[in-house]
Amino acid sequence: MSTPTLDDCAARDAADPLAHHRDAFVLPDGVIYLDGNSLGALPKTVDGRLQAAVTEDWGQGLVRSWNDAGWIDLPATLGAKIAPLIGAPAKEVMVADSTSVNLFKLLVAALRLRPDRRTILMEARDFPTDLYIAQGVAALMGDGYALRTVPTKDIAAAIDETVAVVALTHVNFKTGAVHDMAGLTACAHGAGALTIWDLCHTVGALPIDLAGAGADFALGCTYKYLNGGPGAPAFVYVPQRLQADFHQPLTGWMGHADPFSFVDDFTPADGIRRALSGTPTILSMIALDAALDVWADVDMPALRAKSMALSDLFIKLVEARCAGQGFALASPRDAARRGSQVSFRHPHGYAVIQALIARGVIGDFRAPDIARFGFTPLYTRYVDVWQAADVLFDIMETRAWDTPQFKTRAAVT
Amino acid sequence: MSTPTLDDCAARDAADPLAHHRDAFVLPDGVIYLDGNSLGALPKTVDGRLQAAVTEDWGQGLVRSWNDAGWIDLPATLGAKIAPLIGAPAKEVMVADSTSVNLFKLLVAALRLRPDRRTILMEARDFPTDLYIAQGVAALMGDGYALRTVPTKDIAAAIDETVAVVALTHVNFKTGAVHDMAGLTACAHGAGALTIWDLCHTVGALPIDLAGAGADFALGCTYKYLNGGPGAPAFVYVPQRLQADFHQPLTGWMGHADPFSFVDDFTPADGIRRALSGTPTILSMIALDAALDVWADVDMPALRAKSMALSDLFIKLVEARCAGQGFALASPRDAARRGSQVSFRHPHGYAVIQALIARGVIGDFRAPDIARFGFTPLYTRYVDVWQAADVLFDIMETRAWDTPQFKTRAAVT
Repeated sequence: MSTPTLDDCAARDAADPLAHHRDAFVLPDGVIYLDGNSLGALPKTVDGRLQAAVTEDWGQGLVRSWNDAGWIDLPATLGAKIAPLIGAPAKEVMVADSTSVNLFKLLVAALRLRPDRRTILMEARDFPTDLYIAQGVAALMGDGYALRTVPTKDIAAAIDETVAVVALTHVNFKTGAVHDMAGLTACAHGAGALTIWDLCHTVGALPIDLAGAGADFALGCTYKYLNGGPGAPAFVYVPQRLQADFHQPLTGWMGHADPFSFVDDFTPADGIRRALSGTPTILSMIALDAALDVWADVDMPALRAKSMALSDLFIKLVEARCAGQGFALASPRDAARRGSQVSFRHPHGYAVIQALIARGVIGDFRAPDIARFGFTPLYTRYVDVWQAADVLFDIMETRAWDTPQFKTRAAVT
Repeated sequence: MSTPTLDDCAARDAADPLAHHRDAFVLPDGVIYLDGNSLGALPKTVDGRLQAAVTEDWGQGLVRSWNDAGWIDLPATLGAKIAPLIGAPAKEVMVADSTSVNLFKLLVAALRLRPDRRTILMEARDFPTDLYIAQGVAALMGDGYALRTVPTKDIAAAIDETVAVVALTHVNFKTGAVHDMAGLTACAHGAGALTIWDLCHTVGALPIDLAGAGADFALGCTYKYLNGGPGAPAFVYVPQRLQADFHQPLTGWMGHADPFSFVDDFTPADGIRRALSGTPTILSMIALDAALDVWADVDMPALRAKSMALSDLFIKLVEARCAGQGFALASPRDAARRGSQVSFRHPHGYAVIQALIARGVIGDFRAPDIARFGFTPLYTRYVDVWQAADVLFDIMETRAWDTPQFKTRAAVT
């Protein structure tokens, strides 16, 4: 089969059942945005909603808005909006804190449920904050607790009777490889271990069925495919079957059974609300609330199909047009085993990404050598993929990346 | 001396050196806002700044704004703006997470510095989330760790060689009584204990000198007197002399020495940045950033003088005009021993506060019987205090509070 042309791509866009969702986003002129897996684009609903929240609810309503504008319920309101995207009932999801803080809560709660076991099992080279938080939990709990990391292929075999909890990022942030959630959860349960699924790189990118997989706990951020804005608060999932025995250590007042009784002793709230800790960051939550409205009518199987088609197209175009330029596919070639991103290793990956960004094609770099491209089916077109590959071809042909300005590392890469 | 009249109050406003700061805030018509100690009023700078951050930095800049708009530095940028308000160098303050989460970090870090001691000492009836978090820390660390709470008057005497850390809210949220920070810190140090000061109810309300007091750790929220918006992120203070030995357990990637190296092992950042955990909530931080600009030219001794004068005035007016109506002053009568709030116990406190709110005078209620009024010197006028007392007088005279509609408790009180 021949390499797809720009016209072929335009024809696919014309037939795309998700094409209209692009109108829901602000996308700058002259930019092809392939980094929605780091920070999602701005939904058009956000600005007005946030402005109203500031000028009306805060400015005019003042402290009364905790009740009158429903601020106090936002962790649950937002959880209920995320729930259908991850295969969970509304009463099993809360929005609060960051991914890091929520993972700390879940790891401790899971370890408490398996008091005779001491091992947290994770994937080597998983997203750093997950590994770091697990190291922090193990150090704090002492008494033989330890994080064990193994290569991807060895995870299932490593789940033995010493493992209390298996904590995995559903899609690896560097390679984009997706784990078999149901299979690994069954494997963990077979050995008496619990599971925690970090959905940062999958929520809003592919259909997720936590209940169907029998997952024990899950969490994720909302600023990637959910487009909640920079550093938007994270979510946490605890199924009803585990809620009564769920005891997380960050026992702040928002997780109390009756926070406004102002009593001295902590009693956890019934249900998922005990996953909360401090006062919620309302303004960031308002932005997320508006962003989540985009998902009300998204066809998730169609989203996954488009995600696979976009990333397959990018691989095909790069391998055809940039052959011999040093790119090695770091993601699974089989789209079914890949999240919504494509990664290539390249010895000059950082400079290549900087050169692309200078030409308006925004991907990102992950040390030491990964050039990473995210495909967000709600606003990425097939023609965008074609243009991105075309710019990459030009940059490699002209060695435009090979200048000092593209080799100086920025604070955030 | 006779009871001050409305004209007397107008004269004091005309002579008030802080009066012009009121123009920096949005204040709704028909409202006298005496709850800035719960949620500060909206600074006029916030709306425009937040809109620009959303439409330009997020909408147009997208992921590039982590570098180009300085998002990655906001925890430090905001910390540096708060530092002068608490008597700290810029390099000792970071903005991150919530008060609850930050207290967890500080308590664990403090306990690690006193490994041969097992007691966290706190004030009975301190703000609940502080007590709850300490209970969570003690339960997690096991091994004899315990929270001990004592009445206010017994705190100094209770600091013995079993106490690892004394954690106190600088001003009690119910009574408004202010602790002697320097005296209690010296007392703690004399017994070999560390101190954590929760500044939620004092930052922006009175001058604070952490360095002068020799305080070990501190933290606080930014949505009360700092006007950062609902649930705005909190701050944490670790002096340079303790930073190298500061090891907090929520070891997320933002506290790593080199977060974007994406290595598997956690190494804490040098300095205060190790107090960070997950990705910062940028939109909430942008609002706080704008709100903090108000403080650039505030005369803090003048602020404290006005705070004392406003609250003295309120006490005098209420006691004169509502004599015999069941109010009992719950705050220290000596303004020097009081924060910027006045609390009265009243058997029908909840209904009285609801009746006041219905008439546009916003204070709040703290269970079981505290009617609480905050005086924010930047935007509260002497005439506001007079009018508030006048409305209270009318409500008590007419028993307007005595209807079912004012007795039904809302979710947030």
